[in-house]
Amino acid sequence: MKRIGIVGGGQLARMLALAGRRLGVACEVLDPAEQPCAASVARHLRGDFDDLQALDRLVADCSVATFDFENVAVAPLAHLAQRMPVRPPPKALAVAQDRLEEKRFIAELGIPVAPFRSVDTLHDLRAAVDELGGPCLIKTRRFGYDGKGQWKLRDSSDCESVWAALAGTPAIAEAWVPYQRELSLIVVRDAQADHRLYPLTENHHVDGILAHSLAPATADAALAAEAKRLAFALVDALDYVGVLAIELFEVDGHLMVNEIAPRVHNSGHWSIEGAHCSQFENHLRAVTDLPLGDAEARGCSLMLNVIGQWPDRQALLACPGVNIHDYEKAPRPGRKIGHLTVCADHPNELGERAQRLFVAAGKSALWPALRERIAAISVQR
Amino acid sequence: MKRIGIVGGGQLARMLALAGRRLGVACEVLDPAEQPCAASVARHLRGDFDDLQALDRLVADCSVATFDFENVAVAPLAHLAQRMPVRPPPKALAVAQDRLEEKRFIAELGIPVAPFRSVDTLHDLRAAVDELGGPCLIKTRRFGYDGKGQWKLRDSSDCESVWAALAGTPAIAEAWVPYQRELSLIVVRDAQADHRLYPLTENHHVDGILAHSLAPATADAALAAEAKRLAFALVDALDYVGVLAIELFEVDGHLMVNEIAPRVHNSGHWSIEGAHCSQFENHLRAVTDLPLGDAEARGCSLMLNVIGQWPDRQALLACPGVNIHDYEKAPRPGRKIGHLTVCADHPNELGERAQRLFVAAGKSALWPALRERIAAISVQR
Repeated sequence: MKRIGIVGGGQLARMLALAGRRLGVACEVLDPAEQPCAASVARHLRGDFDDLQALDRLVADCSVATFDFENVAVAPLAHLAQRMPVRPPPKALAVAQDRLEEKRFIAELGIPVAPFRSVDTLHDLRAAVDELGGPCLIKTRRFGYDGKGQWKLRDSSDCESVWAALAGTPAIAEAWVPYQRELSLIVVRDAQADHRLYPLTENHHVDGILAHSLAPATADAALAAEAKRLAFALVDALDYVGVLAIELFEVDGHLMVNEIAPRVHNSGHWSIEGAHCSQFENHLRAVTDLPLGDAEARGCSLMLNVIGQWPDRQALLACPGVNIHDYEKAPRPGRKIGHLTVCADHPNELGERAQRLFVAAGKSALWPALRERIAAISVQR
Repeated sequence: MKRIGIVGGGQLARMLALAGRRLGVACEVLDPAEQPCAASVARHLRGDFDDLQALDRLVADCSVATFDFENVAVAPLAHLAQRMPVRPPPKALAVAQDRLEEKRFIAELGIPVAPFRSVDTLHDLRAAVDELGGPCLIKTRRFGYDGKGQWKLRDSSDCESVWAALAGTPAIAEAWVPYQRELSLIVVRDAQADHRLYPLTENHHVDGILAHSLAPATADAALAAEAKRLAFALVDALDYVGVLAIELFEVDGHLMVNEIAPRVHNSGHWSIEGAHCSQFENHLRAVTDLPLGDAEARGCSLMLNVIGQWPDRQALLACPGVNIHDYEKAPRPGRKIGHLTVCADHPNELGERAQRLFVAAGKSALWPALRERIAAISVQR
């Protein structure tokens, strides 16, 4: 049996390991925490991500390495890559870790991205705002996630305060994109360049954190073709092996890439019940050279994140068709501790199920906007 | 978080524990093996099933106990039942452990069973064959599974040899039933007498072991109503909490109960992908007083057991839509070491997927008969 070493032992590693248990692919997670949430379903190797002894142990135990978060330092990963296959390739990680490199890489492939400028000085920042216009977004080049390390700059009068907040951290300025929808794509590619693409997913963020995802998103043939083209172009250019997540904006009927994540992704969690083969299983299949699985949707699905604390379990489970995914993580404000998925053959039924679920989860305020989106799927059918 | 103690750590406990991981219900398995297959996903308490110290530890660790096989001795279970809730109730176990008690219990509810006679002596055996006619089946009253402890007796001339094979073990004689199909039902009931019923499943045995299951089985409204009536009557009479499996014969358009199993069951494995809430999750929900989940089928499903050794994984995973369930058990002739499930929205697609799967699994010889059965679902639609 092949063992996969996973750098990081959070909920993504946990769901990879759970998929591996069924598939007969064992996982070993490297994580400094005493009891990371993947440890109850995978072997846990306790150590810091840059602990060379721990990394060597991973090399001894496993035949291939992967990671469950993109902020792994490049040096330890290079240490691993000299000793065993690391999938996805470290190059993809390097690109995704740096918003400037990422934007340049994507733009060079002819894929639309928001106009951007490098910002290393206050002068750069002022010039960028002049050229891109206001409002615009300023983001640290590295280590941002869930909306952290980002500022919305209204006009040039905000330059001083944003520059102070940046405190000299290298940054990127991006033009504000008046998008209609936030979408994402999960694509998987294996070492033989075989691809599978999950359908476009529609995402809704609250306070910079993904709140819920709807899949498949409404999309006409032209938009679906655009999605496929850009997804395949990205993974091919990176000689990618594994799952890549692509966050997108829909602007006037076209797609623009916001960012990529070289790993399984929150917006693909619906695929556990909503596709024949989940993003987690397909990542494992790709990195261990097993044939890729079917990424087509089974009916339609709605995934709702559980953030901070659990709603009442009795109320949640009384909702027809709900699937609870508990990450066994301690509750903490703003922390993703689980997710909930409902699926249905038809959007009308999904709507009924989602409405009950949103009430039970105390998210009624989010429901009216979602109802419209589910109705849109229904119309498209 | 509630912890469930499971007596037995085989694949059924493993799949319960895997469902529990998602649901946020932790499991602890009691098993004498060094590394039972549930141990990689649940806490393992090593001990014999009648080890009172180990049982007391289970009481200390858990809030409710259940079991993953029906041949648990009654005495240790009574020990547990005095100290914590045991679900399903030990009475159901006692009935299911003894084929004679089982048949009497079912018959008293007015549910059809094959004509039967108690056999304790050679004289009883001869009288039974005279009354029931040949051929008939002789089964030990206790500890039979997967066709073990059973003999088919052609006529009275076989009495001596079967009696010798029995070697004094108390037995039951059953009339041979000229059935058209082997079916099964999975029903779940909670402590508030709420019920959920999975659709009828059609089962195919080879050498006394379940080879594959097809769900939902074709069934007209009258047969489905009969199934519901008998399933609810059985669980209500036992004041049952948890999943009960009912093995059935279809004889001239009516149902006859062959046997019951007070646990999750091999013929319900399709429900992991083929229903919104699997039999495993519903068992956990029932025994921990959580609301029951949706037992309706999602499309149609085919489950194929992996017995003895694994077919080539690459070939299996190249089949569209296949789900591998590896129990992480050592290969051994006749041993159930995993199962495979394919699902589809429409029977025609299921047929295509099943055919590819049967070829990849080296089971082409079983395919023609299954093709006819899948075609029957298609016609019914």
